[in-house]
Amino acid sequence: MMSTLVKPSILPGFMELTPTDQILFNKMMDTIRKNYEKFGFLPIDTPVIEKSEVLLAKGGGETEKQVYRFQKGSTDMSLRFDLTVPLARYVSQYYSQLNFPFRRYQIGKVYRGERNQKGRFREFYQCDIDIIGNGSLSIINDAEIPALIYSTFKELGFDAFTIQINNRKILKGFFDSLEIDDSTQILRTIDKLEKIGQAGVEKELAELGLNPEKIEKINAFISVKGNNAGIISELRKLNVSNEVFIEGVEELDTVIKYIRLFGVPEENCKINLSIVRGLDYYTGTVYETFLDDYPSLGSICSGGRYDNLAEYYTKQKLPGVGMSIGLTRLFYQLREANLIQADETSLTKVLIIPMNEYTEESVEVANKLREAGVFSQVYLESGKVGKKFGYADKLSIPYVIVVGEEEVKTGLYTIRDMTTGEQRSLDLEEAIKCLK
Amino acid sequence: MMSTLVKPSILPGFMELTPTDQILFNKMMDTIRKNYEKFGFLPIDTPVIEKSEVLLAKGGGETEKQVYRFQKGSTDMSLRFDLTVPLARYVSQYYSQLNFPFRRYQIGKVYRGERNQKGRFREFYQCDIDIIGNGSLSIINDAEIPALIYSTFKELGFDAFTIQINNRKILKGFFDSLEIDDSTQILRTIDKLEKIGQAGVEKELAELGLNPEKIEKINAFISVKGNNAGIISELRKLNVSNEVFIEGVEELDTVIKYIRLFGVPEENCKINLSIVRGLDYYTGTVYETFLDDYPSLGSICSGGRYDNLAEYYTKQKLPGVGMSIGLTRLFYQLREANLIQADETSLTKVLIIPMNEYTEESVEVANKLREAGVFSQVYLESGKVGKKFGYADKLSIPYVIVVGEEEVKTGLYTIRDMTTGEQRSLDLEEAIKCLK
Repeated sequence: MMSTLVKPSILPGFMELTPTDQILFNKMMDTIRKNYEKFGFLPIDTPVIEKSEVLLAKGGGETEKQVYRFQKGSTDMSLRFDLTVPLARYVSQYYSQLNFPFRRYQIGKVYRGERNQKGRFREFYQCDIDIIGNGSLSIINDAEIPALIYSTFKELGFDAFTIQINNRKILKGFFDSLEIDDSTQILRTIDKLEKIGQAGVEKELAELGLNPEKIEKINAFISVKGNNAGIISELRKLNVSNEVFIEGVEELDTVIKYIRLFGVPEENCKINLSIVRGLDYYTGTVYETFLDDYPSLGSICSGGRYDNLAEYYTKQKLPGVGMSIGLTRLFYQLREANLIQADETSLTKVLIIPMNEYTEESVEVANKLREAGVFSQVYLESGKVGKKFGYADKLSIPYVIVVGEEEVKTGLYTIRDMTTGEQRSLDLEEAIKCLK
Repeated sequence: MMSTLVKPSILPGFMELTPTDQILFNKMMDTIRKNYEKFGFLPIDTPVIEKSEVLLAKGGGETEKQVYRFQKGSTDMSLRFDLTVPLARYVSQYYSQLNFPFRRYQIGKVYRGERNQKGRFREFYQCDIDIIGNGSLSIINDAEIPALIYSTFKELGFDAFTIQINNRKILKGFFDSLEIDDSTQILRTIDKLEKIGQAGVEKELAELGLNPEKIEKINAFISVKGNNAGIISELRKLNVSNEVFIEGVEELDTVIKYIRLFGVPEENCKINLSIVRGLDYYTGTVYETFLDDYPSLGSICSGGRYDNLAEYYTKQKLPGVGMSIGLTRLFYQLREANLIQADETSLTKVLIIPMNEYTEESVEVANKLREAGVFSQVYLESGKVGKKFGYADKLSIPYVIVVGEEEVKTGLYTIRDMTTGEQRSLDLEEAIKCLK
């Protein structure tokens, strides 16, 4: 009928998985969701398409260039580029119906027309949690978010990861105390510490026009090291009198204390005074999470505290704190690095193979297994038995039950373990027990 | 800072839920997914955005006008309008990596720029299952699909629903036997049977130019009634010698027999010879599902058998059979009709309320509950106790534990059942048992 075929392919920058990988991906997503729910977060699901006017209310920036924006009729619409702007819109829109603190999670796809690069996706899943207060929000929430992330990554099977934590008020207050307005150049210099050494930093800071007193103070600051308690104590010893600085240190102290109380071991959550996060949005606590053995993967989960979620939509002051896992990228990187592998790559537990005339009896076996909650499939196509076993093998279905004359007569079914090749003859009840 | 605010709102035709409704929606989606997996279907997840060339390969039709299509750079892209075209593209693209019969499910959002109407959505979830054969596919698969739908709707809490089933070959063969090419007008007339009666139908058919013999045969056909076995038997008695007709009746007979074998009671699956489905796509078995007490909701799940899934992308012949639940519309309708209500509208089982100085101890209680799998939340904000209980109440959290001096001293915690108001004093271990 058709003379020309269209080549089946997807757009570059989109991830699509084989069913086996999809099972693994879904398991990770399920684990994340279950942990989010265990900590009392509520689900929401916002549209992928929003009014451009609403989505781009903030305007400007690199993000706006990447937005998929289009018209349909006279309507100007855009695909969401994160889940934070939709959250801000949602909280403003349903403000009177929500109960604060509003703890929500959202797992969904977001869209960015980024330049095409390996491991950069144009469609990817974000898994967000946020706690939004009405007017104010206890600082202890800043400690509960990493506790949830800890619980999630542990259950995802990771042991060696570090949630790095800081408070932006510390650096801001510190620079304020030195009467430095534009700290960009200085931060860039500090960033070179490992490369050029302390003497090198001092030299560059002098070139930037800082006097020796300020350089000494910066040196003292970047020398602050130790365990979490040690860093807090060193920061206090700097005797910076700036109020914002003092507030930042106090907040960090409280958050660190509660993170421990929430059961997170110190090795999994460490202060890093150089973490600031790119976005202006964050105003207090900030987080970045790294896999200890694979720092090259970059931050796999990040977030922080913000003063006001929804300033573009409402006059209500809505402070919040949250974190986000970029699941698509994380999955891709873990797979590329061979760091994930499924224990089971099949959801189906057993394939039932009917001998010649025994399809009906096979269906009845399947009914009973499914009723008992055993995920099962009957192989209904004709063909040689070997091919049918091969099907189970290729799909990694762990067990096969053959149904033929003998089985129907005796009520005993041969169950083959497809990994070991072992066969056992069991009645249905025993089979169900063995397969559950 | 901001002088003007943007009004927070979403585009018309998009559904957005409160967290309470979202919990219910997610539970329905989870039930569907679990049933799909229990029957051995594999998950896939395709991009929401596809190349327009690929998505619109078939071209034409009402659907194309509704597609959200746009350019980014020089790329012409579109949002998927169903999950069937992406499945066709997926199966063609990964043909050599897939194992046939390929049983996949996909639950995802699709997009149609439809005219704005109550209960019509521009973004909605489809929950699709399909079984794709390579070259051929056993007819018994046509019986397993309704068995899965039966299992799903039962677990969703529905009892009175009917999967109406037919085979398009029957009507096609029947009209062929009468040498009627264009059956549209005749179908329209037959459709009026209830309104205008048999005599009225006969009159209209005569006006369409049919001779008395043909009219008599049509009369005999539309008079076929009874239970499933009765209808099959009546159809055979019509003595239509057309091969397609005979094949259709044989297929329907087999499918009906196996549907029963798969455990579906006859009252939930009935032959309806007037079901044809709108799309040309279907070639054999067709299904429509109705809630018996609410026929006005229309078909809540439909599908059928097709000869060739992917003719636009591959020369491989890929016959298949499938069904789809339009979840967003179903949920909307059930809610409008007050037919669904959650048993539990909270995922969180318990709210822990710290008295004045007992936040740390409350966190420790939460840790232990969460470790034991009890979904819990600590109320961390300051405020009066009444307000905190009110929070639990508004979120429908079923239990509250208060942690104060007395509780910490004795290790006995007061657990209040928020529905009955009953209070019990339990140690943590007992509390966990009671809350699980």
